[in-house]
Amino acid sequence: MHKHGGDIYSNTYKIDFSANINPLGIPENVCRAAAQAVEQCASYPDTEYRGLRAGIAKKEGVDEDEIICGNGAAELIFAITAALRPKKALLVVPGFAEYEQALRTQDCEVLFHELKEEQGFTLTEEYLEALTPDLDLIFLCNPNNPTGCLIPRELLAAILEKCRSLQIRAVVDSCFLDFLKEREEVDLSGELQAHPELFLLKAFTKTYAMAGLRLGYGLCADRALLQQMRQCIQPWSVSIPAQAAGCAALKEEAYVEEARAMIFEERERLKQELRVFGLKVYNSRANYIFFRGPEDLGESCAAEGFLLRDCSNYRGLEAGFYRIAVRRPEENAALLGVLEQYYRKNHQR
Amino acid sequence: MHKHGGDIYSNTYKIDFSANINPLGIPENVCRAAAQAVEQCASYPDTEYRGLRAGIAKKEGVDEDEIICGNGAAELIFAITAALRPKKALLVVPGFAEYEQALRTQDCEVLFHELKEEQGFTLTEEYLEALTPDLDLIFLCNPNNPTGCLIPRELLAAILEKCRSLQIRAVVDSCFLDFLKEREEVDLSGELQAHPELFLLKAFTKTYAMAGLRLGYGLCADRALLQQMRQCIQPWSVSIPAQAAGCAALKEEAYVEEARAMIFEERERLKQELRVFGLKVYNSRANYIFFRGPEDLGESCAAEGFLLRDCSNYRGLEAGFYRIAVRRPEENAALLGVLEQYYRKNHQR
Repeated sequence: MHKHGGDIYSNTYKIDFSANINPLGIPENVCRAAAQAVEQCASYPDTEYRGLRAGIAKKEGVDEDEIICGNGAAELIFAITAALRPKKALLVVPGFAEYEQALRTQDCEVLFHELKEEQGFTLTEEYLEALTPDLDLIFLCNPNNPTGCLIPRELLAAILEKCRSLQIRAVVDSCFLDFLKEREEVDLSGELQAHPELFLLKAFTKTYAMAGLRLGYGLCADRALLQQMRQCIQPWSVSIPAQAAGCAALKEEAYVEEARAMIFEERERLKQELRVFGLKVYNSRANYIFFRGPEDLGESCAAEGFLLRDCSNYRGLEAGFYRIAVRRPEENAALLGVLEQYYRKNHQR
Repeated sequence: MHKHGGDIYSNTYKIDFSANINPLGIPENVCRAAAQAVEQCASYPDTEYRGLRAGIAKKEGVDEDEIICGNGAAELIFAITAALRPKKALLVVPGFAEYEQALRTQDCEVLFHELKEEQGFTLTEEYLEALTPDLDLIFLCNPNNPTGCLIPRELLAAILEKCRSLQIRAVVDSCFLDFLKEREEVDLSGELQAHPELFLLKAFTKTYAMAGLRLGYGLCADRALLQQMRQCIQPWSVSIPAQAAGCAALKEEAYVEEARAMIFEERERLKQELRVFGLKVYNSRANYIFFRGPEDLGESCAAEGFLLRDCSNYRGLEAGFYRIAVRRPEENAALLGVLEQYYRKNHQR
């Protein structure tokens, strides 16, 4: 099995930097809504998640029947591959491990487009050449995970155009969209009508720090695809607490703005400080930072109770690559203190 | 889409008899555990659900690696079909709709063994003849849903023997096991070692009235199959509240005993009263009753706020078949009052 970030259960730890979650924690109103909803749990969940869907439709400016919700965005990755049964798919590496895991369940041939370290792991126009008519499906993550890099805007437009003309389905995973300064420019929800081949994946998990409650959604103008996807998952996959939490979360605009401001400031500060240590820091635009450093750094930090995401098990990466979440100022300062200690001990600064 | 019971969201209603849930409602300690666990939900769930698995292992007397948990038992129905990719499967009809839905996602050829009304919808030895070497997978539900009938004990043993010799995987869905007077004799958890082809499906959903929280599990001695199944679902499918609720539920032995006693008494009383109305009542041993009556009965009860499960959309059934949950004495009495009213109005008694 692939080892993920956020596995606080296999470790004793003080602060978990390995999961990319809103550093403000679950909003009080969301927490309360979910806890109160537990009392309703003798009933089955609404298989149509009507209240939640209406809220998402309003927020996203889409029709209610252009929405599918899942038990976390991850469930929808498996659902779309099960619905499409692609013969050949293209993945960008390094990337989120579940795309490949889901494709393998369909015996799909998986091609890999490698991001290059010397290009700062940024997607370039070379990717367009990899889009060939024999492809059924591509997965893109924007910003990418674990690198945090954005796909250049014109390139993404060209990719979608080529997918449309070649009839390649394009899943664009935007789970970290809310933590981008460039959120409005990067968001593709306005492109759905023009691009029925586009499936846009979003999550409540990260934005509202509710990873343990599981809630994600997908947007697509191709209603027949959403219908097929629903046939591939059980009708009750979105729990009652998750539906209630989602409805409450959609009202938390001030909370999201506060988190964004904190992340924008802390991200740049952290990047700068990491560079002072001599670490090679890539151009993440997201709520996490991707960098290269000594191979024993992760272990040393874990020994002090600070969990980094060791990215050595990502396809296309090796030992020494790490991802850390941008957290609260005092937490980030504590991590920098641990790094300071590490470098003092190792005289490697 | 198949319409299910328990859809309280499409109806205004007073009492829902259409979902087969423990009539005592969610236990207070389970409710509290789940609500408190919401506070931990900024983290991802434990992908290994360690605490829960240990509790289930102890309860069931199986090894921890013979257990797989799911976002409700329904998720595991889809996971096992995705893992096995059967070419040909045999279903008993009428039966739970999700078996067929899951098999269809794998383009599986589905054969149907029809339970006969004139045999009281009981499975007979004829079923053994339907077990042929070309089958990859069978689903059985014991007690069956919606009929509530048990598979005769010797027949079930013979079925498992034949499955073993023909290498047919057998999923035995025991989600309603806890509400059987015959629970200990019917439980197959002691048969797992002798029958590695057996996958035993169980649920917290019904026993502890936590359908909205979603928690089910499967037991199987074939660890390789469980591993394959885990590859077919996301790693975080069991939410933090569901894991906490499950751990708390395993301690609720007195609650389960109280519910069992209530159901045993109320079931027989309800059956008797339904027969007095002239309804054809089948031999349910479970926490629900299956019967045949006038085609407009369901609608008439719904108009009074009492939801029955209209079973006309089950494969192998037609209008006039209903399933009702056995609920608390006062609720059951209220339903009987509504039926009394119906028959008085229709002079059909």
